[in-house]
Amino acid sequence: MTAKVVNACVLIIGNEILSGRTQDTNLRDIANTLGGWGIRVAEARVIPDEESVIVPTVREVKAKYDYVFTTGGIGPTHDDITAMCIAKAFEVPLVEHEGIANLIRSRSQDASEAVLASRLRMAMVPEGGGLVDNPGGPPGFRMENVYVLAGIPSVMRDMLAGLKGKLETGDQVFSASVKAYVTESSVAAGLGTLQSELPNVDIGSYPFRDAGGYGTRLVVRGTDQSVLDDLCDRIRALVRASGGALADEASSE
Amino acid sequence: MTAKVVNACVLIIGNEILSGRTQDTNLRDIANTLGGWGIRVAEARVIPDEESVIVPTVREVKAKYDYVFTTGGIGPTHDDITAMCIAKAFEVPLVEHEGIANLIRSRSQDASEAVLASRLRMAMVPEGGGLVDNPGGPPGFRMENVYVLAGIPSVMRDMLAGLKGKLETGDQVFSASVKAYVTESSVAAGLGTLQSELPNVDIGSYPFRDAGGYGTRLVVRGTDQSVLDDLCDRIRALVRASGGALADEASSE
Repeated sequence: MTAKVVNACVLIIGNEILSGRTQDTNLRDIANTLGGWGIRVAEARVIPDEESVIVPTVREVKAKYDYVFTTGGIGPTHDDITAMCIAKAFEVPLVEHEGIANLIRSRSQDASEAVLASRLRMAMVPEGGGLVDNPGGPPGFRMENVYVLAGIPSVMRDMLAGLKGKLETGDQVFSASVKAYVTESSVAAGLGTLQSELPNVDIGSYPFRDAGGYGTRLVVRGTDQSVLDDLCDRIRALVRASGGALADEASSE
Repeated sequence: MTAKVVNACVLIIGNEILSGRTQDTNLRDIANTLGGWGIRVAEARVIPDEESVIVPTVREVKAKYDYVFTTGGIGPTHDDITAMCIAKAFEVPLVEHEGIANLIRSRSQDASEAVLASRLRMAMVPEGGGLVDNPGGPPGFRMENVYVLAGIPSVMRDMLAGLKGKLETGDQVFSASVKAYVTESSVAAGLGTLQSELPNVDIGSYPFRDAGGYGTRLVVRGTDQSVLDDLCDRIRALVRASGGALADEASSE
Protein backbone atom coordinates (compact mmCIF):
# COMPACT_ATOMS: atom_id res chain seq x y z
CA MET A 1 0.00 0.00 0.00
CA THR A 2 1.42 3.33 -1.01
CA ALA A 3 0.95 6.17 1.42
CA LYS A 4 -0.72 9.34 0.20
CA VAL A 5 1.87 12.07 0.63
CA VAL A 6 1.08 15.77 0.86
CA ASN A 7 4.19 17.83 1.43
CA ALA A 8 5.12 21.35 2.37
CA CYS A 9 8.05 23.73 2.39
CA VAL A 10 8.54 26.23 5.22
CA LEU A 11 10.16 29.58 4.42
CA ILE A 12 11.46 31.40 7.49
CA ILE A 13 11.95 34.98 6.30
CA GLY A 14 14.09 37.11 8.57
CA ASN A 15 17.56 38.56 8.96
CA GLU A 16 17.28 38.12 12.72
CA ILE A 17 17.32 34.33 12.37
CA LEU A 18 20.29 34.31 9.97
CA SER A 19 22.29 36.69 12.15
CA GLY A 20 21.95 34.35 15.11
CA ARG A 21 20.18 37.00 17.16
CA THR A 22 16.91 35.07 17.37
CA GLN A 23 16.39 31.34 17.82
CA ASP A 24 13.73 30.16 15.39
CA THR A 25 11.04 27.95 16.88
CA ASN A 26 8.44 28.31 14.13
CA LEU A 27 9.80 25.48 12.00
CA ARG A 28 9.35 22.94 14.76
CA ASP A 29 5.86 24.21 15.62
CA ILE A 30 4.76 24.15 12.00
CA ALA A 31 6.25 20.69 11.40
CA ASN A 32 4.49 19.26 14.46
CA THR A 33 1.14 20.84 13.64
CA LEU A 34 1.18 19.92 9.94
CA GLY A 35 2.53 16.44 10.74
CA GLY A 36 -0.47 15.84 12.99
CA TRP A 37 -2.76 16.73 10.09
CA GLY A 38 -0.99 14.49 7.57
CA ILE A 39 1.17 17.09 5.82
CA ARG A 40 4.93 16.46 5.77
CA VAL A 41 7.44 19.28 5.89
CA ALA A 42 9.89 18.17 3.21
CA GLU A 43 12.23 21.17 3.29
CA ALA A 44 12.71 24.45 5.09
CA ARG A 45 14.71 27.50 4.14
CA VAL A 46 15.78 30.48 6.17
CA ILE A 47 16.21 33.48 3.91
CA PRO A 48 16.93 37.18 4.42
CA ASP A 49 14.49 40.10 4.11
CA GLU A 50 15.68 40.70 0.54
CA GLU A 51 13.46 40.83 -2.49
CA SER A 52 16.17 39.39 -4.73
CA VAL A 53 16.17 36.22 -2.62
CA ILE A 54 12.52 35.93 -1.54
CA VAL A 55 10.95 36.23 -5.02
CA PRO A 56 12.93 33.47 -6.78
CA THR A 57 12.77 31.22 -3.71
CA VAL A 58 8.96 31.48 -3.54
CA ARG A 59 8.74 30.79 -7.28
CA GLU A 60 10.89 27.70 -6.93
CA VAL A 61 9.25 26.13 -3.90
CA LYS A 62 5.61 26.88 -4.76
CA ALA A 63 6.08 24.80 -7.91
CA LYS A 64 7.94 22.04 -6.10
CA TYR A 65 5.75 21.39 -3.04
CA ASP A 66 2.02 21.02 -2.39
CA TYR A 67 2.09 23.83 0.15
CA VAL A 68 4.40 26.63 1.17
CA PHE A 69 4.16 28.33 4.57
CA THR A 70 6.09 31.54 5.13
CA THR A 71 6.71 33.21 8.46
CA GLY A 72 7.83 36.78 9.03
CA GLY A 73 7.88 40.10 7.24
CA ILE A 74 4.18 41.01 7.35
CA GLY A 75 4.22 43.94 9.78
CA PRO A 76 3.92 47.68 9.09
CA THR A 77 7.61 48.62 8.83
CA HIS A 78 9.99 49.11 5.89
CA ASP A 79 11.58 45.67 6.43
CA ASP A 80 8.21 43.91 6.03
CA ILE A 81 8.34 43.03 2.35
CA THR A 82 6.85 39.54 2.25
CA ALA A 83 3.49 40.54 0.69
CA MET A 84 5.17 42.59 -2.03
CA CYS A 85 7.56 39.71 -2.80
CA ILE A 86 4.75 37.13 -2.98
CA ALA A 87 2.89 39.40 -5.41
CA LYS A 88 6.02 39.60 -7.58
CA ALA A 89 6.54 35.85 -7.39
CA PHE A 90 2.99 35.36 -8.73
CA GLU A 91 3.29 38.31 -11.14
CA VAL A 92 0.17 40.04 -9.83
CA PRO A 93 -0.20 43.56 -8.40
CA LEU A 94 -0.31 44.25 -4.68
CA VAL A 95 -3.75 45.66 -3.86
CA GLU A 96 -5.47 46.95 -0.75
CA HIS A 97 -7.85 44.36 0.65
CA GLU A 98 -11.03 46.17 1.62
CA GLY A 99 -11.94 43.86 4.51
CA ILE A 100 -8.51 44.10 6.13
CA ALA A 101 -8.34 47.86 5.54
CA ASN A 102 -11.75 48.38 7.18
CA LEU A 103 -10.70 46.26 10.15
CA ILE A 104 -7.52 48.30 10.56
CA ARG A 105 -9.41 51.61 10.25
CA SER A 106 -11.97 50.53 12.85
CA ARG A 107 -9.15 49.79 15.31
CA SER A 108 -7.21 52.99 14.53
CA GLN A 109 -9.69 55.69 15.57
CA ASP A 110 -7.10 57.49 17.70
CA ALA A 111 -4.21 57.10 15.28
CA SER A 112 -2.62 59.91 13.32
CA GLU A 113 -2.68 59.91 9.53
CA ALA A 114 0.94 58.72 9.40
CA VAL A 115 0.34 55.86 11.82
CA LEU A 116 -2.81 54.80 9.98
CA ALA A 117 -0.89 54.86 6.70
CA SER A 118 1.75 52.55 8.19
CA ARG A 119 -0.90 50.18 9.52
CA LEU A 120 -2.65 50.09 6.16
CA ARG A 121 0.52 48.55 4.67
CA MET A 122 -0.76 45.39 6.39
CA ALA A 123 -3.90 45.51 4.21
CA MET A 124 -1.89 45.16 0.99
CA VAL A 125 -2.18 41.65 -0.42
CA PRO A 126 -1.45 40.12 -3.82
CA GLU A 127 -4.46 40.44 -6.13
CA GLY A 128 -6.53 37.27 -5.94
CA GLY A 129 -5.23 36.34 -2.49
CA GLY A 130 -7.49 34.84 0.18
CA LEU A 131 -7.43 35.60 3.89
CA VAL A 132 -5.80 33.67 6.71
CA ASP A 133 -7.56 34.44 9.99
CA ASN A 134 -5.60 36.03 12.79
CA PRO A 135 -7.57 36.23 16.03
CA GLY A 136 -5.20 38.82 17.51
CA GLY A 137 -4.71 41.27 14.65
CA PRO A 138 -4.90 41.89 10.92
CA PRO A 139 -5.35 38.69 8.90
CA GLY A 140 -2.58 37.07 6.93
CA PHE A 141 -3.23 35.90 3.41
CA ARG A 142 -2.75 33.03 1.07
CA MET A 143 -1.98 33.11 -2.60
CA GLU A 144 -2.79 29.79 -4.29
CA ASN A 145 -0.74 27.23 -2.33
CA VAL A 146 1.37 29.78 -0.42
CA TYR A 147 0.23 30.65 3.11
CA VAL A 148 1.72 33.79 4.65
CA LEU A 149 1.95 33.72 8.44
CA ALA A 150 3.32 36.10 11.04
CA GLY A 151 6.82 35.70 12.45
CA ILE A 152 5.90 36.14 16.13
CA PRO A 153 5.55 32.55 17.37
CA SER A 154 2.30 32.97 19.32
CA VAL A 155 0.63 34.79 16.43
CA MET A 156 1.95 32.27 13.90
CA ARG A 157 0.52 29.40 15.97
CA ASP A 158 -2.92 31.05 16.15
CA MET A 159 -2.97 31.64 12.41
CA LEU A 160 -1.85 28.09 11.64
CA ALA A 161 -4.39 26.59 14.06
CA GLY A 162 -7.12 28.38 12.13
CA LEU A 163 -6.21 26.42 8.99
CA LYS A 164 -7.17 23.11 10.56
CA GLY A 165 -9.55 21.22 8.30
CA LYS A 166 -9.00 23.65 5.41
CA LEU A 167 -5.96 21.98 3.82
CA GLU A 168 -5.56 18.88 1.68
CA THR A 169 -3.92 16.22 3.82
CA GLY A 170 -2.22 12.89 3.25
CA ASP A 171 -1.67 9.84 5.39
CA GLN A 172 -0.50 10.77 8.84
CA VAL A 173 3.02 9.77 9.78
CA PHE A 174 3.34 8.18 13.22
CA SER A 175 6.52 7.72 15.15
CA ALA A 176 7.78 5.58 17.97
CA SER A 177 11.16 5.40 19.63
CA VAL A 178 13.43 3.15 21.64
CA LYS A 179 15.94 4.74 23.99
CA ALA A 180 18.93 2.56 24.72
CA TYR A 181 22.32 2.79 26.37
CA VAL A 182 24.21 1.31 23.46
CA THR A 183 26.66 2.80 20.98
CA GLU A 184 25.43 3.51 17.49
CA SER A 185 28.15 1.35 16.00
CA SER A 186 27.01 -1.69 18.01
CA VAL A 187 23.58 -1.64 16.42
CA ALA A 188 24.47 -0.08 13.06
CA ALA A 189 24.65 -3.31 11.06
CA GLY A 190 21.39 -4.64 12.50
CA LEU A 191 19.58 -1.36 11.91
CA GLY A 192 20.78 -1.31 8.33
CA THR A 193 19.30 -4.77 7.79
CA LEU A 194 15.96 -3.71 9.29
CA GLN A 195 15.89 -0.58 7.13
CA SER A 196 16.52 -2.64 3.99
CA GLU A 197 13.64 -4.94 4.92
CA LEU A 198 11.24 -2.06 5.55
CA PRO A 199 11.81 0.61 2.91
CA ASN A 200 8.50 2.37 3.73
CA VAL A 201 9.58 3.02 7.32
CA ASP A 202 12.15 5.65 8.19
CA ILE A 203 14.60 4.43 10.86
CA GLY A 204 16.70 7.17 12.44
CA SER A 205 19.53 6.78 14.93
CA TYR A 206 20.38 9.69 17.24
CA PRO A 207 23.22 9.46 19.74
CA PHE A 208 22.79 11.26 23.06
CA ARG A 209 24.51 11.64 26.39
CA ASP A 210 22.60 12.02 29.64
CA ALA A 211 23.01 11.21 33.33
CA GLY A 212 22.91 7.50 32.47
CA GLY A 213 25.81 7.77 30.04
CA TYR A 214 26.13 7.60 26.27
CA GLY A 215 23.25 6.13 24.37
CA THR A 216 21.29 6.07 21.16
CA ARG A 217 17.68 6.89 20.50
CA LEU A 218 16.20 4.89 17.65
CA VAL A 219 13.24 6.62 16.08
CA VAL A 220 10.95 4.92 13.59
CA ARG A 221 8.45 6.77 11.44
CA GLY A 222 5.78 5.50 9.09
CA THR A 223 2.09 5.50 8.27
CA ASP A 224 1.23 2.12 9.84
CA GLN A 225 1.32 2.08 13.63
CA SER A 226 1.31 -1.73 13.89
CA VAL A 227 4.38 -1.96 11.66
CA LEU A 228 6.12 0.54 13.95
CA ASP A 229 5.19 -1.44 17.07
CA ASP A 230 6.60 -4.67 15.60
CA LEU A 231 9.72 -2.86 14.48
CA CYS A 232 10.30 -1.42 17.96
CA ASP A 233 10.13 -4.97 19.37
CA ARG A 234 12.81 -6.05 16.91
CA ILE A 235 14.95 -3.01 17.73
CA ARG A 236 14.71 -3.80 21.45
CA ALA A 237 15.82 -7.36 20.72
CA LEU A 238 18.71 -5.98 18.66
CA VAL A 239 19.80 -3.71 21.51
CA ARG A 240 19.79 -6.61 23.99
CA ALA A 241 21.65 -8.88 21.58
CA SER A 242 24.26 -6.13 21.12
CA GLY A 243 24.94 -5.95 24.86
CA GLY A 244 23.05 -2.68 25.33
CA ALA A 245 20.51 -1.73 27.99
CA LEU A 246 17.04 -0.40 27.29
CA ALA A 247 16.43 2.92 28.99
CA ASP A 248 12.67 2.79 28.77
CA GLU A 249 9.90 1.45 26.61
CA ALA A 250 9.07 2.77 23.16
CA SER A 251 6.97 5.89 23.38
CA SER A 252 4.51 6.86 20.71
CA GLU A 253 4.71 10.54 19.88
CA MET B 1 33.53 52.43 1.77
CA THR B 2 32.25 49.06 0.68
CA ALA B 3 32.34 46.30 3.24
CA LYS B 4 34.17 43.11 2.39
CA VAL B 5 31.54 40.39 2.50
CA VAL B 6 32.29 36.70 2.97
CA ASN B 7 29.10 34.67 3.11
CA ALA B 8 28.04 31.16 4.00
CA CYS B 9 25.15 28.77 3.65
CA VAL B 10 24.22 26.36 6.45
CA LEU B 11 22.73 22.99 5.52
CA ILE B 12 20.97 21.26 8.39
CA ILE B 13 20.65 17.65 7.26
CA GLY B 14 18.19 15.58 9.23
CA ASN B 15 14.68 14.15 9.12
CA GLU B 16 14.38 14.70 12.87
CA ILE B 17 14.41 18.48 12.40
CA LEU B 18 11.85 18.42 9.56
CA SER B 19 9.52 16.10 11.47
CA GLY B 20 9.41 18.55 14.38
CA ARG B 21 10.83 15.96 16.76
CA THR B 22 14.05 17.89 17.42
CA GLN B 23 14.49 21.64 17.83
CA ASP B 24 17.51 22.75 15.81
CA THR B 25 19.94 25.02 17.64
CA ASN B 26 22.92 24.58 15.32
CA LEU B 27 21.92 27.35 12.92
CA ARG B 28 21.94 29.96 15.64
CA ASP B 29 25.25 28.73 17.06
CA ILE B 30 26.90 28.68 13.65
CA ALA B 31 25.52 32.11 12.73
CA ASN B 32 26.79 33.64 15.97
CA THR B 33 30.22 32.05 15.72
CA LEU B 34 30.76 32.84 12.05
CA GLY B 35 29.31 36.33 12.52
CA GLY B 36 31.92 37.01 15.19
CA TRP B 37 34.62 36.03 12.70
CA GLY B 38 33.27 38.20 9.88
CA ILE B 39 31.41 35.55 7.89
CA ARG B 40 27.71 36.16 7.24
CA VAL B 41 25.22 33.35 7.06
CA ALA B 42 23.21 34.36 4.00
CA GLU B 43 20.88 31.37 3.82
CA ALA B 44 20.12 28.12 5.62
CA ARG B 45 18.28 25.05 4.45
CA VAL B 46 16.91 22.14 6.40
CA ILE B 47 16.82 19.07 4.18
CA PRO B 48 16.02 15.38 4.71
CA ASP B 49 18.47 12.45 4.86
CA GLU B 50 17.86 11.74 1.17
CA GLU B 51 20.53 11.52 -1.48
CA SER B 52 18.19 12.88 -4.15
CA VAL B 53 17.87 16.11 -2.17
CA ILE B 54 21.30 16.45 -0.55
CA VAL B 55 23.40 16.05 -3.72
CA PRO B 56 21.71 18.75 -5.86
CA THR B 57 21.41 21.08 -2.87
CA VAL B 58 25.14 20.84 -2.12
CA ARG B 59 25.96 21.42 -5.79
CA GLU B 60 23.78 24.52 -5.87
CA VAL B 61 24.93 26.18 -2.67
CA LYS B 62 28.66 25.41 -2.94
CA ALA B 63 28.68 27.40 -6.18
CA LYS B 64 26.57 30.22 -4.78
CA TYR B 65 28.26 30.95 -1.43
CA ASP B 66 31.84 31.37 -0.23
CA TYR B 67 31.38 28.63 2.37
CA VAL B 68 28.93 25.85 3.10
CA PHE B 69 28.63 24.26 6.56
CA THR B 70 26.63 21.07 6.91
CA THR B 71 25.49 19.50 10.16
CA GLY B 72 24.28 15.95 10.65
CA GLY B 73 24.52 12.58 8.99
CA ILE B 74 28.15 11.67 9.69
CA GLY B 75 27.73 8.82 12.18
CA PRO B 76 28.11 5.06 11.66
CA THR B 77 24.51 4.10 10.86
CA HIS B 78 22.61 3.52 7.60
CA ASP B 79 20.98 6.97 7.78
CA ASP B 80 24.37 8.72 7.84
CA ILE B 81 24.82 9.49 4.17
CA THR B 82 26.30 12.98 4.20
CA ALA B 83 29.86 11.95 3.21
CA MET B 84 28.61 9.80 0.33
CA CYS B 85 26.40 12.63 -0.89
CA ILE B 86 29.20 15.22 -0.71
CA ALA B 87 31.41 12.88 -2.76
CA LYS B 88 28.66 12.60 -5.38
CA ALA B 89 28.12 16.35 -5.39
CA PHE B 90 31.84 16.81 -6.18
CA GLU B 91 31.91 13.78 -8.50
CA VAL B 92 34.78 12.09 -6.68
CA PRO B 93 34.92 8.63 -5.09
CA LEU B 94 34.44 8.07 -1.38
CA VAL B 95 37.72 6.70 0.02
CA GLU B 96 38.93 5.50 3.40
CA HIS B 97 41.06 8.16 5.07
CA GLU B 98 44.05 6.37 6.58
CA GLY B 99 44.50 8.79 9.49
CA ILE B 100 40.86 8.59 10.57
CA ALA B 101 40.78 4.81 10.09
CA ASN B 102 43.89 4.36 12.26
CA LEU B 103 42.39 6.57 14.96
CA ILE B 104 39.19 4.53 14.93
CA ARG B 105 41.11 1.23 15.03
CA SER B 106 43.22 2.42 17.95
CA ARG B 107 40.06 3.23 19.91
CA SER B 108 38.26 0.01 18.96
CA GLN B 109 40.56 -2.64 20.47
CA ASP B 110 37.65 -4.38 22.20
CA ALA B 111 35.19 -4.09 19.34
CA SER B 112 33.91 -6.99 17.27
CA GLU B 113 34.56 -7.11 13.53
CA ALA B 114 30.99 -5.94 12.80
CA VAL B 115 31.22 -3.00 15.19
CA LEU B 116 34.62 -1.99 13.83
CA ALA B 117 33.24 -2.16 10.29
CA SER B 118 30.40 0.19 11.27
CA ARG B 119 32.80 2.60 12.92
CA LEU B 120 35.07 2.59 9.88
CA ARG B 121 32.18 4.06 7.86
CA MET B 122 33.18 7.28 9.65
CA ALA B 123 36.62 7.10 8.00
CA MET B 124 35.14 7.34 4.51
CA VAL B 125 35.64 10.80 3.04
CA PRO B 126 35.45 12.22 -0.49
CA GLU B 127 38.78 11.83 -2.29
CA GLY B 128 40.79 15.01 -1.88
CA GLY B 129 38.98 16.04 1.29
CA GLY B 130 40.80 17.64 4.23
CA LEU B 131 40.17 17.00 7.91
CA VAL B 132 38.12 19.02 10.38
CA ASP B 133 39.34 18.36 13.91
CA ASN B 134 36.96 16.84 16.42
CA PRO B 135 38.42 16.75 19.93
CA GLY B 136 35.84 14.19 21.10
CA GLY B 137 35.80 11.66 18.29
CA PRO B 138 36.56 10.92 14.66
CA PRO B 139 37.33 14.07 12.63
CA GLY B 140 34.89 15.59 10.20
CA PHE B 141 36.10 16.66 6.79
CA ARG B 142 35.98 19.47 4.33
CA MET B 143 35.81 19.28 0.58
CA GLU B 144 36.88 22.54 -1.07
CA ASN B 145 34.55 25.17 0.47
CA VAL B 146 32.16 22.67 2.10
CA TYR B 147 32.72 21.90 5.81
CA VAL B 148 31.02 18.82 7.18
CA LEU B 149 30.21 19.00 10.89
CA ALA B 150 28.44 16.71 13.33
CA GLY B 151 24.76 17.15 14.15
CA ILE B 152 25.11 16.81 17.94
CA PRO B 153 25.25 20.46 19.11
CA SER B 154 28.16 20.09 21.55
CA VAL B 155 30.27 18.19 19.01
CA MET B 156 29.34 20.64 16.24
CA ARG B 157 30.46 23.56 18.40
CA ASP B 158 33.82 21.92 19.17
CA MET B 159 34.45 21.22 15.50
CA LEU B 160 33.47 24.73 14.46
CA ALA B 161 35.61 26.32 17.19
CA GLY B 162 38.60 24.48 15.76
CA LEU B 163 38.19 26.33 12.46
CA LYS B 164 38.91 29.69 14.07
CA GLY B 165 41.62 31.51 12.12
CA LYS B 166 41.50 28.99 9.27
CA LEU B 167 38.76 30.60 7.18
CA GLU B 168 38.72 33.63 4.92
CA THR B 169 36.78 36.36 6.68
CA GLY B 170 35.18 39.67 5.74
CA ASP B 171 34.29 42.78 7.68
CA GLN B 172 32.61 41.96 10.95
CA VAL B 173 28.99 42.99 11.30
CA PHE B 174 28.15 44.68 14.59
CA SER B 175 24.71 45.20 15.99
CA ALA B 176 23.03 47.43 18.52
CA SER B 177 19.43 47.65 19.61
CA VAL B 178 16.89 49.95 21.18
CA LYS B 179 14.04 48.43 23.16
CA ALA B 180 10.96 50.63 23.34
CA TYR B 181 7.36 50.45 24.44
CA VAL B 182 5.97 51.83 21.23
CA THR B 183 3.93 50.25 18.45
CA GLU B 184 5.68 49.43 15.21
CA SER B 185 3.23 51.53 13.23
CA SER B 186 4.06 54.64 15.31
CA VAL B 187 7.69 54.56 14.28
CA ALA B 188 7.33 52.88 10.88
CA ALA B 189 7.48 56.03 8.76
CA GLY B 190 10.47 57.43 10.65
CA LEU B 191 12.35 54.13 10.45
CA GLY B 192 11.71 53.96 6.72
CA THR B 193 13.27 57.39 6.31
CA LEU B 194 16.33 56.40 8.36
CA GLN B 195 16.74 53.20 6.34
CA SER B 196 16.60 55.15 3.06
CA GLU B 197 19.30 57.50 4.35
CA LEU B 198 21.58 54.64 5.45
CA PRO B 199 21.41 51.89 2.85
CA ASN B 200 24.53 50.16 4.23
CA VAL B 201 22.92 49.62 7.62
CA ASP B 202 20.23 47.02 8.17
CA ILE B 203 17.41 48.32 10.39
CA GLY B 204 15.07 45.63 11.72
CA SER B 205 11.90 46.08 13.72
CA TYR B 206 10.69 43.26 15.97
CA PRO B 207 7.50 43.57 17.99
CA PHE B 208 7.39 41.88 21.39
CA ARG B 209 5.17 41.59 24.43
CA ASP B 210 6.56 41.33 27.93
CA ALA B 211 5.60 42.27 31.50
CA GLY B 212 5.85 45.94 30.53
CA GLY B 213 3.35 45.59 27.69
CA TYR B 214 3.62 45.63 23.91
CA GLY B 215 6.77 47.05 22.42
CA THR B 216 9.20 47.00 19.56
CA ARG B 217 12.87 46.18 19.49
CA LEU B 218 14.77 48.10 16.86
CA VAL B 219 17.93 46.31 15.82
CA VAL B 220 20.59 47.94 13.66
CA ARG B 221 23.39 46.00 12.00
CA GLY B 222 26.38 47.22 10.06
CA THR B 223 30.16 47.20 9.82
CA ASP B 224 30.78 50.64 11.39
CA GLN B 225 30.11 50.78 15.13
CA SER B 226 30.09 54.60 15.26
CA VAL B 227 27.39 54.76 12.57
CA LEU B 228 25.32 52.33 14.63
CA ASP B 229 25.76 54.41 17.80
CA ASP B 230 24.62 57.57 16.03
CA LEU B 231 21.68 55.74 14.50
CA CYS B 232 20.57 54.41 17.89
CA ASP B 233 20.52 58.00 19.19
CA ARG B 234 18.27 58.99 16.31
CA ILE B 235 16.01 55.98 16.88
CA ARG B 236 15.67 56.89 20.56
CA ALA B 237 14.70 60.43 19.55
CA LEU B 238 12.15 58.98 17.11
CA VAL B 239 10.63 56.79 19.82
CA ARG B 240 10.28 59.78 22.19
CA ALA B 241 8.82 61.97 19.44
CA SER B 242 6.30 59.21 18.67
CA GLY B 243 5.06 59.15 22.27
CA GLY B 244 6.83 55.89 23.13
CA ALA B 245 8.92 55.03 26.17
CA LEU B 246 12.46 53.70 26.07
CA ALA B 247 12.78 50.42 27.96
CA ASP B 248 16.54 50.56 28.34
CA GLU B 249 19.61 51.85 26.62
CA ALA B 250 20.96 50.40 23.39
CA SER B 251 22.97 47.30 24.02
CA SER B 252 25.80 46.22 21.81
CA GLU B 253 25.71 42.50 21.09
